[in-house]
Amino acid sequence: VWNGLSGLRKDNTGYDLKQMFIGAEGTLGVITGACLKLFPQPAAHAVAWVAVASPEQAVDLLALAKARTGGQVSAFELVSGFALGLVLQHVPDVRDPLPSSAPWRVLLDLGIADAAMAEPIMERVLAAAMEAGLVEDAAVAGNQAQAQLMWKLRESVPIAERAYGKAVKHDVSTPVSRVAEFLLRAGETVQSVSPGSAIIAFGHVGDGNIHYNVSPPPGLDGDVFVEGLGLRVTEAVHDLVTQLDGSISAEHGIGRLKREENARRKAGAEIELMRAVKRALDPDNRMNPGRVL
Amino acid sequence: VWNGLSGLRKDNTGYDLKQMFIGAEGTLGVITGACLKLFPQPAAHAVAWVAVASPEQAVDLLALAKARTGGQVSAFELVSGFALGLVLQHVPDVRDPLPSSAPWRVLLDLGIADAAMAEPIMERVLAAAMEAGLVEDAAVAGNQAQAQLMWKLRESVPIAERAYGKAVKHDVSTPVSRVAEFLLRAGETVQSVSPGSAIIAFGHVGDGNIHYNVSPPPGLDGDVFVEGLGLRVTEAVHDLVTQLDGSISAEHGIGRLKREENARRKAGAEIELMRAVKRALDPDNRMNPGRVL
Repeated sequence: VWNGLSGLRKDNTGYDLKQMFIGAEGTLGVITGACLKLFPQPAAHAVAWVAVASPEQAVDLLALAKARTGGQVSAFELVSGFALGLVLQHVPDVRDPLPSSAPWRVLLDLGIADAAMAEPIMERVLAAAMEAGLVEDAAVAGNQAQAQLMWKLRESVPIAERAYGKAVKHDVSTPVSRVAEFLLRAGETVQSVSPGSAIIAFGHVGDGNIHYNVSPPPGLDGDVFVEGLGLRVTEAVHDLVTQLDGSISAEHGIGRLKREENARRKAGAEIELMRAVKRALDPDNRMNPGRVL
Repeated sequence: VWNGLSGLRKDNTGYDLKQMFIGAEGTLGVITGACLKLFPQPAAHAVAWVAVASPEQAVDLLALAKARTGGQVSAFELVSGFALGLVLQHVPDVRDPLPSSAPWRVLLDLGIADAAMAEPIMERVLAAAMEAGLVEDAAVAGNQAQAQLMWKLRESVPIAERAYGKAVKHDVSTPVSRVAEFLLRAGETVQSVSPGSAIIAFGHVGDGNIHYNVSPPPGLDGDVFVEGLGLRVTEAVHDLVTQLDGSISAEHGIGRLKREENARRKAGAEIELMRAVKRALDPDNRMNPGRVL
């Protein structure tokens, strides 16, 4: 039993073993406790629903918001216009606070330490973004209910997506600076592999993490798509991610499903390093065998 | 050759190998490149020199400053009154901006995203700290030259210390919440082992990292102290750090000098894990042999 619950911010007394166990999916050992780093809760939130013309604008808006708030950006969620349309169609009791033909929306949530400053700071961020040509239009939540509606629109995307039908799903990340390029090129890639497919894209731009889901082309049954053409879509999307130095599993992990694909896509040296560590720490392969590696 | 320069904020495709190489002092491989995470430069800094009655007040002041600024604290440096006295005595062209009999000073540097807000935010932080009884007195730098003087006082501590004479030095950390307890108990510990020794303590409270240096008692030669009684002081200080779940090397590393002590103080399971990783990645022990492990 190793106790790694030190809670130290600085410690230079050896290898940072803890990081190896995080995300290992139990293949190196069983984690029985965690030590959390806490941050003060912001005194107030200012929430806005912003129409942007492109993912590039969204990434630039994020950089502007971080710089102007000293990093007090609690959430920055990108939603495609198509995904928003599905929410408005399939989820009860929602409406678009900002009717716009712009192809993308951003949910911008600032968590501000000084409650009196939350609104003025949001206004200044949006004014600067407007001036820089990064924003088509924006609605600022005037009260808690309006802020909750904006969050509901974002959080209902997976529900609306299930109501819409089957899709192949990708939990990918790229460096933040390449999110816009990924979305542009992925759109072209999908259309060339599966013409007519709809794309339901949403995600955490600040982490470079996009949930990029692709529905069947019109007329093709969902199950048939997922077992056939959809596999080729996934291969093409993951090829693009790999080319952009991204990850084919930003949040969800490898498990059994992506094990072979991960081994195939990762550099041989990295897989060998991981296997060497696994053999060293679990020579009898007793820890969650058959996962990850 | 493994390329770990991914720059991804989220990646769940295996073990986080990069963290293992950081701080391994070359014992697992040679690092030839680094990928840096950058933050926007604050638009303005507000710097204050603050007199506090105890390390406990300093830790509480740090928590208050972080909460009131949304984390926009660029530096929070604690300096003991004794260390400050050495600087005033041995370093030319400095003066104390805040004559005070308080036993500790804090250099508080806020890096604020909105230049116009830097001064008002500093004023509000200090007013709230005064009201909470955390601050004895404070001077806010009115211009760049005054801010530089405050930084010079802090940065001259190691120079003044060398001018003062030999000392045994400790680069230790504890959880931030135990810094005050460490300083209180370490003072008692040192006096019981080496009565009359002066303590030169300074450091980065936000990281729980204190440079805790102890000079010879009056009348004892520096070299004699460092080779004799000073070793017992170090042992006692490190015993206390270990008891507080701290680190005997926060920044400086293990190298050859602390290798045996580190192996003795760390839990056996942790040393065994580290050795297993070392054997797996460097079976012939060619990478910086004799260091760390």
